[in-house]
Amino acid sequence: MAERVEIGDPSTLTATALAGHLADGVLTAEAVTRACLERIEASEPDIQAWAHYDERLAIMQAKEADRRRAQGLPLGPLHGVPVGLKDIIDARGLPTHNGTPLDAGHRPLEDATVTQRLRNAGAIIVGKTVTSELAYFHPGATKNPHDPTRTPGGSSSGSAAAVAAGMVPFAVGTQTNGSVIRPASFCGVVGYKPSYGTVPRTGVLKAAPSLDHVGFFARSIDDITLAAAAMGPDDEDRDCDLNVGPLQPIAQSTPPVTPDIAMVHTPFSERLEPETRAGFAELVDVLGEHGTETELPELFGRGAGWLATIMASEMTRNLGHYLDRDASQISDAFKALMDQGQGIRAVDYLAARDMQPVLLEALEPLFERFDAIITPAAPGEAPADLTTTGDPIFCTLWTLCGLPAVTLPLLSGRNGMPVGVQLVGAYGQDAQLLRTARWLLAQCQPDGEET
Amino acid sequence: MAERVEIGDPSTLTATALAGHLADGVLTAEAVTRACLERIEASEPDIQAWAHYDERLAIMQAKEADRRRAQGLPLGPLHGVPVGLKDIIDARGLPTHNGTPLDAGHRPLEDATVTQRLRNAGAIIVGKTVTSELAYFHPGATKNPHDPTRTPGGSSSGSAAAVAAGMVPFAVGTQTNGSVIRPASFCGVVGYKPSYGTVPRTGVLKAAPSLDHVGFFARSIDDITLAAAAMGPDDEDRDCDLNVGPLQPIAQSTPPVTPDIAMVHTPFSERLEPETRAGFAELVDVLGEHGTETELPELFGRGAGWLATIMASEMTRNLGHYLDRDASQISDAFKALMDQGQGIRAVDYLAARDMQPVLLEALEPLFERFDAIITPAAPGEAPADLTTTGDPIFCTLWTLCGLPAVTLPLLSGRNGMPVGVQLVGAYGQDAQLLRTARWLLAQCQPDGEET
Repeated sequence: MAERVEIGDPSTLTATALAGHLADGVLTAEAVTRACLERIEASEPDIQAWAHYDERLAIMQAKEADRRRAQGLPLGPLHGVPVGLKDIIDARGLPTHNGTPLDAGHRPLEDATVTQRLRNAGAIIVGKTVTSELAYFHPGATKNPHDPTRTPGGSSSGSAAAVAAGMVPFAVGTQTNGSVIRPASFCGVVGYKPSYGTVPRTGVLKAAPSLDHVGFFARSIDDITLAAAAMGPDDEDRDCDLNVGPLQPIAQSTPPVTPDIAMVHTPFSERLEPETRAGFAELVDVLGEHGTETELPELFGRGAGWLATIMASEMTRNLGHYLDRDASQISDAFKALMDQGQGIRAVDYLAARDMQPVLLEALEPLFERFDAIITPAAPGEAPADLTTTGDPIFCTLWTLCGLPAVTLPLLSGRNGMPVGVQLVGAYGQDAQLLRTARWLLAQCQPDGEET
Repeated sequence: MAERVEIGDPSTLTATALAGHLADGVLTAEAVTRACLERIEASEPDIQAWAHYDERLAIMQAKEADRRRAQGLPLGPLHGVPVGLKDIIDARGLPTHNGTPLDAGHRPLEDATVTQRLRNAGAIIVGKTVTSELAYFHPGATKNPHDPTRTPGGSSSGSAAAVAAGMVPFAVGTQTNGSVIRPASFCGVVGYKPSYGTVPRTGVLKAAPSLDHVGFFARSIDDITLAAAAMGPDDEDRDCDLNVGPLQPIAQSTPPVTPDIAMVHTPFSERLEPETRAGFAELVDVLGEHGTETELPELFGRGAGWLATIMASEMTRNLGHYLDRDASQISDAFKALMDQGQGIRAVDYLAARDMQPVLLEALEPLFERFDAIITPAAPGEAPADLTTTGDPIFCTLWTLCGLPAVTLPLLSGRNGMPVGVQLVGAYGQDAQLLRTARWLLAQCQPDGEET
């Protein structure tokens, strides 16, 4: 049977530290999984991060992982690491409710590709985390672990909250506008939305496929690089054709020269809370001559409109059938989106789609000069309002362009709530972006604290 | 200077025969090109296949090709072969008028990728062949070489007519609905529309990119396989990601077993002329037990509507600016298309796009049983009406699905005009399709005549 080794509370360790202890045999997968489940049971009544978790199934996977190790079988990079999956991502043996009562009782027979890859890498699937309704704005029950009167953000609400609350070291979410970076910012964890086309979406709720990204939540950048295990091309998802991994060798190296960072003034800067503004002013000081204030090309002022056009058109096409099934079970916000989508003309949709490569190209000169863009992850701290998931606007342009983005919990708002600093990299340069993010963290934590 | 070797009229030889003689030095590129130019000058007043051809430029390229050979430099598979390009395909030094006076005087600075690849393979670009207006229905001036009162078909009218009239052995066209297979059928030449995504469209008029295919016209199947020189993935055309070449080794081999062919009853069979029907009945006899009459899944009855939705939406998006520039220069047919496109909703466009992979999958059982589908290339012979380009309906489903298609000039109509037999293959199985087409030709020409 699994031997319980005490090295503090395993539910507060990073995935990287856990993976090391698990590979060394200092911890068993069963011990780690039980510690996570205990933490979930203790905090779940307050936080409600989970749509479904299955203790028996999680322990079974953990025992199987321990057996593999005992038999000397090869172990994956996530061997024994408990993981939460946003409840729009299929996992065999668990329901997928997509945040709507209309899918109550739906149990997929197959893993999503990303789930299968995480399993192959050794991860223990603990359960499904709360999503807002159909990965759009209408919130689920989850509270912000830092203050239960505040939203955790959305739509990957439960994934962000579960990691922030120490329930799992690692969780998977999705972003179609700002659904990874924003909740990570509000919950004070590291969030990562890879370049478009790097993580397969087969078995994930198809919302707006031209914008849908799978992304990750963790407590350190090194944990985020472990996500590489789930990346890479997939024949079944034709848009998933970019290979950025393995990320570790570059992401964990020291930058060859000091990175130059573009402090970008977005067209939405007036939405920033004063504390976020002040925090950024301090960051300018930290970066010194390596931080340059820059304007985006004017075109980007229309980016939010283009994303809205694509998102409403594609979500109406792909999710409109929910409304047809039973409109009484659908939120007003979602109905409004469907109304909007029904009214969009094909030519306007196609015009918006055509802007994606144009915007990407317009950023090329910037990425020739700079290693990354730095910009807020959200206007400020999580709103004290559980009927909203907050404002995604600071993620919108980067989602539209499909650029890789990371948020780091470096700032705080007027109530001491976390606020994220978002770094955005060149398309496909995910490893370099993570390296720059690691470097920035070191600059901001000169005492050498590991994050 | 180039020595003129008499081996008959080089302008009537196939590209394959020419390429052989040119490689052997039996013919010079200059002699072949001059012969083609002579034929053009003799027939062009009647046929009007060319939007523009440039004698000086063609001879210059031919002399350069002869010089390469004299110097012992490596020669491409199309060394010295004169080629015509549909006038929506850019070629350095030649205008691109796209079949509209609104582009009069437009001279692109760069070759289209397909042009560049043909040049790299050694081809001599003779000129630009007539296209119907913006590659849609409104015809240009070209007449059918078999009967100048009849349409050559469209939109690749000039390419089909130029090959049929012996002006060039090989020409390039495009197909968004039926613009290669139909004119090839009407003009009595071999036409080939490769699998979607095999020939780059960079530098080709962007009409409906989800349907746009580059295709080829020639006088034999072996010539068509030379087209492989212009195939293969291209970074600049993201939809061009399928590698089917080199075609020759398979296309020119004998089928390992007698091919089984599905005689498909399309939902449009009532549009067939009686002579086409009778011709197909004879083909059934030729195929015997290797020809099986088959129905398409019911879904295909709606295919033409889906193609129309995609085509109108995308062409309106991409070509609507012509109307904005000067509507008085635009045909009523094109205006009607733009009107239709403006009225299409994004959700209906997306629904139609989603059907492309569904239809493709619905054909899988058929391609597991059969080597190819056989079906008419057109309802019958070319209409005796120069205000139309004829009915593309027998090409529509295969274009929508992106399947490779070949038409062979095997039948004739009540006036002795050619009618094509179309063979359609499984996606990406272009080489096998060409092999089957060669086999079918041999069955229909038991005297061993080479085609």
